[in-house]
Amino acid sequence: MSPSDPGVLALELILAKRRNEQLGSHDIESVLAGYLLGTVGEAQMAALLMAICWRGMSPSEVNAWTEAMISSGMRQDLSGLSRPTVDKHSTGGVGDKVSLVLVPLVAACGAAVPQLSGRGLGHTGGTLDKMESIPGWRAVLGPEEMAGILEEVGCVICAASPDLAPVDRRLYALRDVTGTVESIPLIASSIMSKKVAEGTRALLLDVKVGSGAFMADREEARRLALTMIGIGQAYGVDTRAVLTDMDAPLGMAVGNAVEVAEAIDTLRGGGPPELRQLVLEEAGEMLHMVGLEADPAAALDDGRAWQKFSEMVRAQGGDPEAALPRGDTLATISASSDGFLHRLDARSIGLAAWQLGAGRARAEDPVSKVAGALCSARRGEWVVKGQPLLQLVGDEPARLEHALQALEGAITISPSPAPEHVQILERLGPEDLA
Amino acid sequence: MSPSDPGVLALELILAKRRNEQLGSHDIESVLAGYLLGTVGEAQMAALLMAICWRGMSPSEVNAWTEAMISSGMRQDLSGLSRPTVDKHSTGGVGDKVSLVLVPLVAACGAAVPQLSGRGLGHTGGTLDKMESIPGWRAVLGPEEMAGILEEVGCVICAASPDLAPVDRRLYALRDVTGTVESIPLIASSIMSKKVAEGTRALLLDVKVGSGAFMADREEARRLALTMIGIGQAYGVDTRAVLTDMDAPLGMAVGNAVEVAEAIDTLRGGGPPELRQLVLEEAGEMLHMVGLEADPAAALDDGRAWQKFSEMVRAQGGDPEAALPRGDTLATISASSDGFLHRLDARSIGLAAWQLGAGRARAEDPVSKVAGALCSARRGEWVVKGQPLLQLVGDEPARLEHALQALEGAITISPSPAPEHVQILERLGPEDLA
Repeated sequence: MSPSDPGVLALELILAKRRNEQLGSHDIESVLAGYLLGTVGEAQMAALLMAICWRGMSPSEVNAWTEAMISSGMRQDLSGLSRPTVDKHSTGGVGDKVSLVLVPLVAACGAAVPQLSGRGLGHTGGTLDKMESIPGWRAVLGPEEMAGILEEVGCVICAASPDLAPVDRRLYALRDVTGTVESIPLIASSIMSKKVAEGTRALLLDVKVGSGAFMADREEARRLALTMIGIGQAYGVDTRAVLTDMDAPLGMAVGNAVEVAEAIDTLRGGGPPELRQLVLEEAGEMLHMVGLEADPAAALDDGRAWQKFSEMVRAQGGDPEAALPRGDTLATISASSDGFLHRLDARSIGLAAWQLGAGRARAEDPVSKVAGALCSARRGEWVVKGQPLLQLVGDEPARLEHALQALEGAITISPSPAPEHVQILERLGPEDLA
Repeated sequence: MSPSDPGVLALELILAKRRNEQLGSHDIESVLAGYLLGTVGEAQMAALLMAICWRGMSPSEVNAWTEAMISSGMRQDLSGLSRPTVDKHSTGGVGDKVSLVLVPLVAACGAAVPQLSGRGLGHTGGTLDKMESIPGWRAVLGPEEMAGILEEVGCVICAASPDLAPVDRRLYALRDVTGTVESIPLIASSIMSKKVAEGTRALLLDVKVGSGAFMADREEARRLALTMIGIGQAYGVDTRAVLTDMDAPLGMAVGNAVEVAEAIDTLRGGGPPELRQLVLEEAGEMLHMVGLEADPAAALDDGRAWQKFSEMVRAQGGDPEAALPRGDTLATISASSDGFLHRLDARSIGLAAWQLGAGRARAEDPVSKVAGALCSARRGEWVVKGQPLLQLVGDEPARLEHALQALEGAITISPSPAPEHVQILERLGPEDLA
């Protein structure tokens, strides 16, 4: 048991974090390297993760943790591209198909968008799961293929290489079974390690706040955003954030194929107005960050965004014109009275979609392409008794019962007008760091 | 992934404990049973343990946790013995050889004392390590051999059977490497599960408080004592506690063989007055708990206690008359000035003994029988410059340097008289439970 034994060092770090002491950068890097090598075991890492959930991490600890994850793998160099790189990350919400529209739109306006994405364990699949509803489309690209599409088309949505921040992959699987997912420094370092390793120059974070988001509390969401902005700054990645509302689903569709269909409508100049508006706001931020002065609304209306999406899908083997798979309508939920629609709860509708098979319970589970929910009224609208508000769609009627249970209490109708909701609650940048 | 999957249940319990929610008794028992079977992994258990260190446990959770540990193994039935059973547990301190005197003394006064003991990871060895300084003495007895000695002699000091609370054994090894040893509910349930399974009817706890104790803080020590008293009450084991001072070593000898020698002096009616006094106080409490009215001081002075110790040692293969191993004097620390000896720091002297080899760093390490420290002055005494205060003894002179470093600042001498110290800070019983 020498002082350089990784197991002994891990124990020292666990005890120090329990006592709320500051961990040294070098020690953090040694323990994470030991974890990747197997000289620090799963039990010690689990205890350290829970102690971090308890005590948090200081900015310098978060930076060292992130650095250890980045340096555990390869780091892409995108500086040779002819266009400026800018990426976007959303913390995820119900009906959040923004990336599917935003990535080709920003590319159509002149930037390069290297969107490495995941599958996720949310109510519906992640961006990759959604894109896989498109016949033929491939999520997994080699690094050179990815760089080639990025240069040629200007955007790519694909799976992160296993060589990117491999320790994060291991840690994520461990956090998932040990109840240590919810921790601002751990979430921030996980997201930012992949974005820094991916090689983007600028990054817009969409931190969702509300019942359907990971963060129900606005102050927590703000802390997460600022922690990520701080990491971005440490690495010279220009990072800004928007906190956006997630109390109701974003747009009308919740699921995988149904969200792709809605994204395509939006790319063609249509789509739900609040989705179009949020995409345009985010596109404006991203273009501003890399000094491009294009009009994203025009790119949606004149077909350039749709064309860029089509190019990107084709470059990854998909057919953008192919019919998307569709499920059956399993149930329709109607208004129980006349009144204003005050509440269309994002979390309940997300859970209903998940119960129908749109999301997964374990990383290795498949998702249903067709399961989901389609809203036919918006929060704030006047509805009349018997008017359809929500359709549940899917291919497994046996799952309907649990989905309907998830919807209990999800909808509130009241005779008084509903308060106005804003999409973008707050904008944050490096100037907001204390 | 069914709801009865132990891994899923473990995750639910971790998340509930993180949120500071109450865990159900049945769930606690299922998860600990799963851990023993291997269906709940080390990582999940480590995360749960750290969440318990963070959030604590309610009395009903502690009782369920203890019950799960007891029911994981066998439970001894000592109700057939002809004498009333009473045991004692000390949380451990520097120079704490009380059990070696107390166990035969209480047996000499008519009770049966089934002292199942451990080796421990303290500054010196545990009670078993100390007893193993006696040539021929065996710590490991079969259950029937143990019960036979207990009936015939009236006392036994031996290793707990591996069948007693086996889940505690597994948990202890995990806690040791995951920084989760320090937790009042985990410490209390670990101690009490073994004492309840051992089958004693009454139990006296000696909870040490001070620099050389596990608990430096009196309020923490009080909480630990009350938690254990509560568990005892739930199982019908009459449990009382004394909080005792551990700022200076107990008696003059710190080590293994040197402590046995001091215990034998005390058993023969001599020994340091404060050791004799504490032993008599504790013996009085124990005898009172089982309704015996004997005079323990007389049993020390007339040779009955020493005779009982000799019988017990012989029954376990040892020779109580054999010479104990002795180390060389490696260094003598003398008073640096005239004055009152204000401080003779228990922790520093314990660490010095540990550095000389009296204790172990890992459970599988051996301990040196002869290493240790011998005080030649008492806290509060007037000492003169150059007077020897402490001898370091052992068999590995190369270890002296670290031992001397551990003693830096351990001794304080001042011209003004030192404040009085009391041995027993407080007595607690079921009447003190809220």
